[in-house]
Amino acid sequence: MNFIRPNIRHMHGYSFGEQPADPTVIKLNTNEHALPPSPAVAAALARFDTADLRRYPEPTALPLRRRLADLHDLDTRQVIATRGGDELLRLLFTTCIAPDNAFGMITPGYSLYTTLARIADSRIIEYSLTAPTYDLPADLASRMNDDGIRFTCIVNPHAPSGRLYARDTIQRFLDEFRGLVLLDEAYADFVSPQHAWNSPPLLAEHDNLVILRSLSKGYALAGLRVGYGLGQADLIDTLVSKTRDSYNLDAIAQCLALAALDDQTHARASWETVRQARESLRDRLQQLGFQIPASETNFLLARLPAHLTNLTAQAVYQALKARGILVRWFDQPDIRDALRITVGNAEENARLLATLQTILHDDTE
Amino acid sequence: MNFIRPNIRHMHGYSFGEQPADPTVIKLNTNEHALPPSPAVAAALARFDTADLRRYPEPTALPLRRRLADLHDLDTRQVIATRGGDELLRLLFTTCIAPDNAFGMITPGYSLYTTLARIADSRIIEYSLTAPTYDLPADLASRMNDDGIRFTCIVNPHAPSGRLYARDTIQRFLDEFRGLVLLDEAYADFVSPQHAWNSPPLLAEHDNLVILRSLSKGYALAGLRVGYGLGQADLIDTLVSKTRDSYNLDAIAQCLALAALDDQTHARASWETVRQARESLRDRLQQLGFQIPASETNFLLARLPAHLTNLTAQAVYQALKARGILVRWFDQPDIRDALRITVGNAEENARLLATLQTILHDDTE
Repeated sequence: MNFIRPNIRHMHGYSFGEQPADPTVIKLNTNEHALPPSPAVAAALARFDTADLRRYPEPTALPLRRRLADLHDLDTRQVIATRGGDELLRLLFTTCIAPDNAFGMITPGYSLYTTLARIADSRIIEYSLTAPTYDLPADLASRMNDDGIRFTCIVNPHAPSGRLYARDTIQRFLDEFRGLVLLDEAYADFVSPQHAWNSPPLLAEHDNLVILRSLSKGYALAGLRVGYGLGQADLIDTLVSKTRDSYNLDAIAQCLALAALDDQTHARASWETVRQARESLRDRLQQLGFQIPASETNFLLARLPAHLTNLTAQAVYQALKARGILVRWFDQPDIRDALRITVGNAEENARLLATLQTILHDDTE
Repeated sequence: MNFIRPNIRHMHGYSFGEQPADPTVIKLNTNEHALPPSPAVAAALARFDTADLRRYPEPTALPLRRRLADLHDLDTRQVIATRGGDELLRLLFTTCIAPDNAFGMITPGYSLYTTLARIADSRIIEYSLTAPTYDLPADLASRMNDDGIRFTCIVNPHAPSGRLYARDTIQRFLDEFRGLVLLDEAYADFVSPQHAWNSPPLLAEHDNLVILRSLSKGYALAGLRVGYGLGQADLIDTLVSKTRDSYNLDAIAQCLALAALDDQTHARASWETVRQARESLRDRLQQLGFQIPASETNFLLARLPAHLTNLTAQAVYQALKARGILVRWFDQPDIRDALRITVGNAEENARLLATLQTILHDDTE
């Protein structure tokens, strides 16, 4: 007997980046923060009394949502705390997308969107961004409207390119598009301060906007699974009170997330460290011949040097892996000739550069 | 603009038990364990290095699933680790129930099933158990087959009555029913050893069975949000690799769950303590005139003494609450005249009994 729905029987699951058990592997493949989380997180964990685990946690993570509302100058009712950003994405599909509703998939992008759309039995229509700039096409909103798209996701800064769309680009899209937009800001903490990127004020003018943020990247807490969503109170309230699993955030995660958010000094310093490492790594990779768009994230999309006719990006990915360094290579149109490289710490970046130099040198000999 | 699906716009969310902020309240309303978790959980937490939180957790909680497979003498591919039992329930609806498929809701039961069925836009057909025994009707499977039920959930031991269905009752139902059955064993750890309750061997004979277990109750870890499912490898693999949120269990939860499971000595002793307290509390409540079916869980369903014509169960619930003691009262047919009372520790049970005595005495004066 087969109890599985046909749409799920026929789909593939999301492929996540490798998580090797070997601790000596240099992991530059899943965009984890180069530095550990704030010492305040360790202090909060040391104070946590496991006797309290006997009890259910705060059901809607209210203290955490209040803290996030303060941080973004919003009402608490506009904030949902989620198990990573992924839970927010799933909740939006569950809450807003009925079978056969159309989802607009912007490619290249986060392939989890497609997975979630397939689970929702949604129709998926793809819209391509073009290398090397990955601009949002000026007619994207009108094409999506013509196609009856009900929901789309825009990653900003964009992954896997790292580029930041300007505020007026986003605003124009929100004005014109008639469906719901998830602005996926998983990497927004790494945007250079000169851009003064701050999207939550857009919520006052656009009722079709939901913003995703995460503590996985900016706060170095990928292992803790905490993200959040910002949006209109009526939609957020529906997610919180109807479609969310009750007690979605455990007591320890709520406690440590608050501790991390309270130490903004550590967080901001850590973002600046990553930015400096990013610019330095980009310079050095460019010196090796890689073509790399400016990134406002903690990763770089590095296209192979044009003179290396014998090496594919896949081959370089494999050669790095054989030498204990993991980066990400996607078997997808338009980025098959590139590697997505997470900005590591000083030692990791140095090892990466030295190893790449060897691989490229061996090839040109 | 309203982006919310009509089925979700028109439904109510799940109402969870009150979680008061006041620590002096005696909480006997959400069936939390009377005792704290194993000291091994505290020891594991003390050893946890928060620097590791920078990294994503083990994606499918493989070490935890291996441990659970050993515990139940199953293959690891038959085990999924979930964020509480609730995530397993949600995943089964997502994976197996398309809009308009029929869900069989056995009442009284866990109202979250209905909530999840509404989110799935499923048709819900109700089947009543009758007080005071809450037997599964002998013709239940054939009626469900006639109604085209695709999925149903059986709570065993049953909530809110606490009674245990015998193995052959469950087997007969599984043999006859053509749909998928979730056997919700959230409270199975509290079953008296004399019943030798052990359902996982049923999986070898019944391909329409999934078993839900939880660490929330038996291991006193409601605050940690860890449960698991046992089933056929093909269905479990679909949940793990397709419909589950990637990284559904954070690194700390995986670590502490393993520590709790490894200390079976503590767990078994704690279950025995709860059983003894349960029998003693039941005796004392019966002496006050309450009618209480035998319970194999950590709670009692107490019907009001027949001679108290002036007091409703709701009034007693409110009088207890006014005196700082929370129990659960359900505004639902067939259990409106009863209170569901979690078995607390010795002091909590004594306070409850003394306070109930006062309330009943005040009324009869």
